Amino acid sequence: MKKIGILGGGQLGRMLLQAAINYPVETFVMENDAECPAAHLCHHFIKGDIKDFDAVYQFGKNLDAITIEIENVNVDALEKLESEGVKVYPRPSVLKTIKNKILQKEYYKSHEIPTAAFVITQNKNELAAHQSFLPAAHKLAEGGYDGRGVQLINNKSEIEKGFDVPAVLEKMVDIEKELAVIVVVNESGQIAIFPPVEMVFDKYLNQLDYQLCPAILPDKVLWKAEAISMHVVKNFKSPGIFAVELFVDRKGDVFVNETAPRVHNSGHHTIEAHFSSQFDMLWRVMLDYPMGNPKYILPSVMVNVTGDEGFTGNVIYEGLQDVLKIDNAFLHLYGKKQTKPGRKMGHVTILSKETQDLMYKANIVKRTLKVRS
Amino acid sequence: MKKIGILGGGQLGRMLLQAAINYPVETFVMENDAECPAAHLCHHFIKGDIKDFDAVYQFGKNLDAITIEIENVNVDALEKLESEGVKVYPRPSVLKTIKNKILQKEYYKSHEIPTAAFVITQNKNELAAHQSFLPAAHKLAEGGYDGRGVQLINNKSEIEKGFDVPAVLEKMVDIEKELAVIVVVNESGQIAIFPPVEMVFDKYLNQLDYQLCPAILPDKVLWKAEAISMHVVKNFKSPGIFAVELFVDRKGDVFVNETAPRVHNSGHHTIEAHFSSQFDMLWRVMLDYPMGNPKYILPSVMVNVTGDEGFTGNVIYEGLQDVLKIDNAFLHLYGKKQTKPGRKMGHVTILSKETQDLMYKANIVKRTLKVRS
Repeated sequence: MKKIGILGGGQLGRMLLQAAINYPVETFVMENDAECPAAHLCHHFIKGDIKDFDAVYQFGKNLDAITIEIENVNVDALEKLESEGVKVYPRPSVLKTIKNKILQKEYYKSHEIPTAAFVITQNKNELAAHQSFLPAAHKLAEGGYDGRGVQLINNKSEIEKGFDVPAVLEKMVDIEKELAVIVVVNESGQIAIFPPVEMVFDKYLNQLDYQLCPAILPDKVLWKAEAISMHVVKNFKSPGIFAVELFVDRKGDVFVNETAPRVHNSGHHTIEAHFSSQFDMLWRVMLDYPMGNPKYILPSVMVNVTGDEGFTGNVIYEGLQDVLKIDNAFLHLYGKKQTKPGRKMGHVTILSKETQDLMYKANIVKRTLKVRS
Repeated sequence: MKKIGILGGGQLGRMLLQAAINYPVETFVMENDAECPAAHLCHHFIKGDIKDFDAVYQFGKNLDAITIEIENVNVDALEKLESEGVKVYPRPSVLKTIKNKILQKEYYKSHEIPTAAFVITQNKNELAAHQSFLPAAHKLAEGGYDGRGVQLINNKSEIEKGFDVPAVLEKMVDIEKELAVIVVVNESGQIAIFPPVEMVFDKYLNQLDYQLCPAILPDKVLWKAEAISMHVVKNFKSPGIFAVELFVDRKGDVFVNETAPRVHNSGHHTIEAHFSSQFDMLWRVMLDYPMGNPKYILPSVMVNVTGDEGFTGNVIYEGLQDVLKIDNAFLHLYGKKQTKPGRKMGHVTILSKETQDLMYKANIVKRTLKVRS
């Protein structure tokens, strides 16, 4: 049996391990918290800091392969492991490019991949020199995560809010829709692509409201999104799984927002709605099995279950019964004991042939399920 | 979080734990073998003998609920636990009836449930007195499992092969088909019923060859099978999940063969092919959630992966690549390190709209996948 390790023990690791149960593989997880969502679901849990060189190297050196569920890991250790013959998904070189927003944007530019216009700023003085570029989003080069490390700068009076460290200043795109495309690449370079999904955002809260699969857009736009996503991933020259997040503007042009080189929130619906899930696909790549079928069985909507505003502490779920009463609603709770505002605690996927029915049920879930303390 | 225990750590426990990952529940498993298929997938693994009174009682006394993945457990301990307020699925009284083939047959008879004609024999002398009953199957009252403990007696010259301990002598039914129906009962007595599946046996080897869902039979026969299965389960007056195995004879009459009061081999296809799987359903019952949807999303075939004849020892799978190449084939290996002839090592479920396509692909799996040592 192959020995395969995961850096990080959150919900993505948890769902990866759920998919691993079908296959002959000995699983290892490293995470600082012995009560993390994935800790009890692997053969071997190692408590350790995934950002620490020695910890990651020691964890990986006797493994056949290693993957990540979060970008914020020690890439130097992964490079050393790769040089010693451990397979790393994605390749550390890709992780280096993606972890740094400046390198990531330059990668898109050098490969002629459409992405919002940008300039690089090393400090606030440089930012002030780009007033003609506003309104824009200022994004930290390193360390941003889930909305943190991004500052909207609408006009010159807001320049003060910008970062005084290396960052990317990105021109606002007149966004019509946000899409995500998951692309899988195996060792021989074969590619499987999941159908584009559409993020439907709440107009008032900047939080993922729900996600629809397939996206409702003209074929021409979908093909563009798929072609661009393939192009992004092919040039990485790395096996693994990649989530490409894209914007569509009002003219139907498509831009890459960013790429995650791992299983991703935008692929959770694939567990029930697709023949092969994103998690299943990554195991197939790592175990050198043939690719699965990324097509959907039925259309789906996915709703994130996040900690309600104003509640921090031991989690209490309200409305679970009502959610589980909904026909073909699939609940996933991640086993986190503590909630805080906006923390991802779980998700719900709903299957139905009818988009209207999906939207209706997604709204019931949003209204019914409360994450309190 | 509720604390729920499983007696037995084989593949059924493993797949139960795979489904539990979606829900807020603290899981416990007891089994004698620390390397059993379920050991690494629960919060707490306890090494112990599930047939031992003290072991089962100690395991269960601090749990909210307990279930089984095999009938051969200490029922007295479960009765004591039940009397002390631990929920037991199924109720120990049902387990007592089902574990003993004599009591089980008498249960069917007293509830006017159609089942093959039978007489009870305490020893070989009594068996010899029932020559007019032959050809018949002689079944051990206690301790039979997976084909062991059953002796076919075609004529009086074969009476010597019968059991000299309490047993049931069951008249041969002229079997046209074998069906299985899984019935779920929750705490309030609500019932969900999975569509009948059909077992397609190899004519030469008495081993499950593949299993088709839905069964191909006239509606009249299917309704009869469902009605009988419901009747069997309702009279148990116990929440839980039950697999009712039935025979259909050439006239279209339906007979109960036997009932298992737990998740069952005949429900494995429900993981991918149905909205709610048998494993998901049992968690919903134990966590007091609303029932899931037992309907199928797509027709399916399920093939057991068993140890090849002539091979005993460290397992080696041949043909995995070819099986995983089949469109919409789902592999489940149970993580058993040792194979022996006939041992259940995994299963493959295939989804397709077309029965012919399902049969064709099931045969590819049977021909391709080899379980050797």
